[in-house]
Amino acid sequence: MAKKTKAEIRDRIAGLRKLDISRMYLNDFFHTWKESDDEIAAVFEVAEILRGLRENNISTKVFDSGLGISVFRDNSTRTRFSFASACNLLGLEVQDLDEKTSQIAHGETVRETANMVSFMADVIGIRDDMYIGKGYTYMKTVAEAVQDGFDQGVLEQRPTLVNLQCDIDHPTQSMADMLSVINYFGGVENLKGKKVAMTWAYSPSYGKPLSVPQGIIGLFTRFGMDVVLAHPEGYNVMPEIEEVAAANAAASGGSYKRVTSMEEAFEGADIVYPKSWAPFAVMEERTQLVGEGRFDELKALEKRCLENNAKFKDWTCTEELMKKTKDGKALYMHCLPADITGVSCKEGEVEASVFDRYLVPLYKEASYKPYVIAAMIMLAKFKDPAEILEKLLNADKDRILEA
Amino acid sequence: MAKKTKAEIRDRIAGLRKLDISRMYLNDFFHTWKESDDEIAAVFEVAEILRGLRENNISTKVFDSGLGISVFRDNSTRTRFSFASACNLLGLEVQDLDEKTSQIAHGETVRETANMVSFMADVIGIRDDMYIGKGYTYMKTVAEAVQDGFDQGVLEQRPTLVNLQCDIDHPTQSMADMLSVINYFGGVENLKGKKVAMTWAYSPSYGKPLSVPQGIIGLFTRFGMDVVLAHPEGYNVMPEIEEVAAANAAASGGSYKRVTSMEEAFEGADIVYPKSWAPFAVMEERTQLVGEGRFDELKALEKRCLENNAKFKDWTCTEELMKKTKDGKALYMHCLPADITGVSCKEGEVEASVFDRYLVPLYKEASYKPYVIAAMIMLAKFKDPAEILEKLLNADKDRILEA
Amino acid sequence: MAKKTKAEIRDRIAGLRKLDISRMYLNDFFHTWKESDDEIAAVFEVAEILRGLRENNISTKVFDSGLGISVFRDNSTRTRFSFASACNLLGLEVQDLDEKTSQIAHGETVRETANMVSFMADVIGIRDDMYIGKGYTYMKTVAEAVQDGFDQGVLEQRPTLVNLQCDIDHPTQSMADMLSVINYFGGVENLKGKKVAMTWAYSPSYGKPLSVPQGIIGLFTRFGMDVVLAHPEGYNVMPEIEEVAAANAAASGGSYKRVTSMEEAFEGADIVYPKSWAPFAVMEERTQLVGEGRFDELKALEKRCLENNAKFKDWTCTEELMKKTKDGKALYMHCLPADITGVSCKEGEVEASVFDRYLVPLYKEASYKPYVIAAMIMLAKFKDPAEILEKLLNADKDRILEA
Repeated sequence: MAKKTKAEIRDRIAGLRKLDISRMYLNDFFHTWKESDDEIAAVFEVAEILRGLRENNISTKVFDSGLGISVFRDNSTRTRFSFASACNLLGLEVQDLDEKTSQIAHGETVRETANMVSFMADVIGIRDDMYIGKGYTYMKTVAEAVQDGFDQGVLEQRPTLVNLQCDIDHPTQSMADMLSVINYFGGVENLKGKKVAMTWAYSPSYGKPLSVPQGIIGLFTRFGMDVVLAHPEGYNVMPEIEEVAAANAAASGGSYKRVTSMEEAFEGADIVYPKSWAPFAVMEERTQLVGEGRFDELKALEKRCLENNAKFKDWTCTEELMKKTKDGKALYMHCLPADITGVSCKEGEVEASVFDRYLVPLYKEASYKPYVIAAMIMLAKFKDPAEILEKLLNADKDRILEA
Repeated sequence: MAKKTKAEIRDRIAGLRKLDISRMYLNDFFHTWKESDDEIAAVFEVAEILRGLRENNISTKVFDSGLGISVFRDNSTRTRFSFASACNLLGLEVQDLDEKTSQIAHGETVRETANMVSFMADVIGIRDDMYIGKGYTYMKTVAEAVQDGFDQGVLEQRPTLVNLQCDIDHPTQSMADMLSVINYFGGVENLKGKKVAMTWAYSPSYGKPLSVPQGIIGLFTRFGMDVVLAHPEGYNVMPEIEEVAAANAAASGGSYKRVTSMEEAFEGADIVYPKSWAPFAVMEERTQLVGEGRFDELKALEKRCLENNAKFKDWTCTEELMKKTKDGKALYMHCLPADITGVSCKEGEVEASVFDRYLVPLYKEASYKPYVIAAMIMLAKFKDPAEILEKLLNADKDRILEA
Repeated sequence: MAKKTKAEIRDRIAGLRKLDISRMYLNDFFHTWKESDDEIAAVFEVAEILRGLRENNISTKVFDSGLGISVFRDNSTRTRFSFASACNLLGLEVQDLDEKTSQIAHGETVRETANMVSFMADVIGIRDDMYIGKGYTYMKTVAEAVQDGFDQGVLEQRPTLVNLQCDIDHPTQSMADMLSVINYFGGVENLKGKKVAMTWAYSPSYGKPLSVPQGIIGLFTRFGMDVVLAHPEGYNVMPEIEEVAAANAAASGGSYKRVTSMEEAFEGADIVYPKSWAPFAVMEERTQLVGEGRFDELKALEKRCLENNAKFKDWTCTEELMKKTKDGKALYMHCLPADITGVSCKEGEVEASVFDRYLVPLYKEASYKPYVIAAMIMLAKFKDPAEILEKLLNADKDRILEA
């Protein structure tokens, strides 16, 4: 991850100009599989260009004023700071909208609130990942509301919506993950034929969202890699997303398959991503129980799930398992925080010695997220982002004042 | 609400120069009736100019650094975002002061805190509307404290105080409402003789502040309109404000009267503003009970009030009633959120079909608030705002970077 | 505190150039006694220069974008706003990291979180003063984590850590206090031989941190003053800090001693600083009880302490005592808020008439804190701050736009 030269930045801007990104302008970023290959590539290019500019102490402020609104319906530190960093990088001030209590707010209220807070908003970032069928629906409602407000002349600008994790996809995570993979392997052209093991792993908590594994199989299958999803029986992800993964793999010349053992998935893998999640069926049941206020049954569901999870404590990323990977040196990935055996819990997703060995790559993986979010914003707000980025490069304004 | 041309902006700046606004500099905005006609007009002009600049993608940043402090002693989303938007538009960063717990803080503490947080504050926005005799008093204490701090050399600048709703007036609301009315009817010169019905309406909640109806009758009577206040027996507003309304009406060539039926108020009205509020006498009693910690009696008061409210469920803005207005097409106004029958409550202030028909005007009404707040700030912080606004227009710096 | 002329600012920049501050670049500010005399002097110079620039309406924005992260493990209004003001003054946007619940977070988590939030952070300000042996340790862990992240290429910049109060020192307070003393007495050269009484005073609360008295004796002894610490038996501060104070006094040609009566301390004093704190031994016991979850014993400890405190209600700053000071006119200092007898409590640290007479100096004392924090940030982030400050002076960009 050496600092990019200005010439390299210029090359990337030239590359960006060749991509068809016309559909992204004044649009939203919901799920990676709704974006074309050019659109995905554009997010990576813009992210790298913004990073390059910052590395060269060049201001990337494209907004002189404007708000970035964040809505976190779930506690968040990392994504909150990633979004705040992205907004700040571009010149937007973050204002948090506390919508926790309006989980079941009806459409009319959502529509009204979305407009009321957006008079000077250029972006709305939403994380709403806890309930199947809810998060994405809420985001769509917000996006439609501000589109309508813009069309009616209520809003002077069209805020773009960035999906900071919904019940289906976690595009800022999977895109940051992929960008780190591209850098780790020295270019997107080196990914063909690489084996990726996205596998379930044991955690003492229950009900972790499905959006990370779904995001990974939905995106990584686009690069000609051999993607394997592994989980114990019953921990299935949404079938629609498996279909997306299979179709992607077919189109990109890679493969997608599902296996039922961690060992099989790790065998010869170039990348492993062991992480806990809740079965789709459980998530659906939970959503229904919450919606109907049946909280006693919710407790019972949790108890049942934890008992079931406990049967699969051997689904953990050990040194032994790591040895099965390609040359014993697969890249270990995680969205963080991980449940580390003997550190953050008694028994968890990964052995401490494995986790520790990958600390720097893990932190670098996370470091791409602010740039990916900023890229999504830029591509939605500027008709010709290449022109804007070139203008920033030429202006060469200091980010930190230089003597 | 077509985008203003630069020539139109220039005309408005010329208009602003003709107004006597000398008293506004380094002052505060508490209640509209303490401001002269020129001062009220200046807020509208500056708000329109700022909006025009933003529509033309021209930066309105007049502060390079500085804080805008917000104090919300009551939950708030809309006003919070309006204040944040106004500050951001001018270049100030919002910092929230959480003063909820110090409701009964004695003067010394208020004075000290006001200075301690204001070393780099250019504006303090306060919403404190729940207790009669408290909100405005608190704001005055804060304003006097920072004036004293400035006079003594403790503060390098004099923060201006913006009343974001007190127990008496809600000037940012009534001013935004009036600015939207001026635009709706195509100019302030078209308001003479228009009939305005500010009427009480049923809501399943109790204890909504009086500051909205008081703000409306205290301001709308200044424009030669025929303002009618309608409410059931016992739901009186503060008598002092009715006196203000009557005096305003006499001076402006309009009229002010109070009636006891919604039908009478709606008859031939050009504008209707049906909204719930608590009787002044109840608000006073509540303030006393809270102050004396008599919380059991508070419960009893609430129960009694809700029972009384329930007698007036027919005070609701129906399609039938709307037909009585001028050509059946009066402008329906509300400060939002409204209690909509069958949508946000079983029985409320307005029928859903009426509310829905006015969605766009309602949202536009709200859209003026950030600009009104920003105008109040500018008029208090700049000796010659017209000169500053012209400088911004001529500088023509992009708000969003253009290619 | 007259407004500085540009010539005076230029003189101070010249003075700054003569100081050896090479060690401060890319470093942190933990405890004043770890800084050399030149480094302490540099903080004062930069603070005065920044204040001078702001007084002259000259922009001090040295960051075009970037975050300032605040962590308050204890409620705070004043320090929160001081930090926010300092960041805003330099162009950084504040993001609060809510770490209250992770008091006993283990090192690994702290390290990870520190990196995860710092991708675009230029400064991290931490207040963690409640538990002996914890606050400073936590700060060190954070500082080491981001240093490591920077070394490993995870972070593109090295955030500097500013100690906003730990269990040992409160450097932003003591430095702001000292800068106000320097201004009050007309220059650092006038401090030699002045007598300072840092004395314990009664308060109805228990467990106030030791970092203020320790910060004062650890810093004020460096200026050739005669520093006296007074407290009832058993209210000792940390012995290491008394050693620091004694060594400082010896080196600076002043003196340090401890006495057991307020009268003796006040006798002939030029400065008095009467303030409550908890005995070191109690703080240690409390930390242990909290750590072991022995909350019943914690209650007992509090009761015992309050009973013991109550024996010393006569340790209060009265008009009578003030008469014993130099010409009866010693400067009364406090970090605020003070426990004022008959105002904020029945019996407290100071009589209301004394406190009221010193209101303006007390507020001015506090007004230096934002500038001291900003100075600490600048000295850590810029290799040649004098050059940068001169550039700002010459650029002469308006903070508030001028006509």
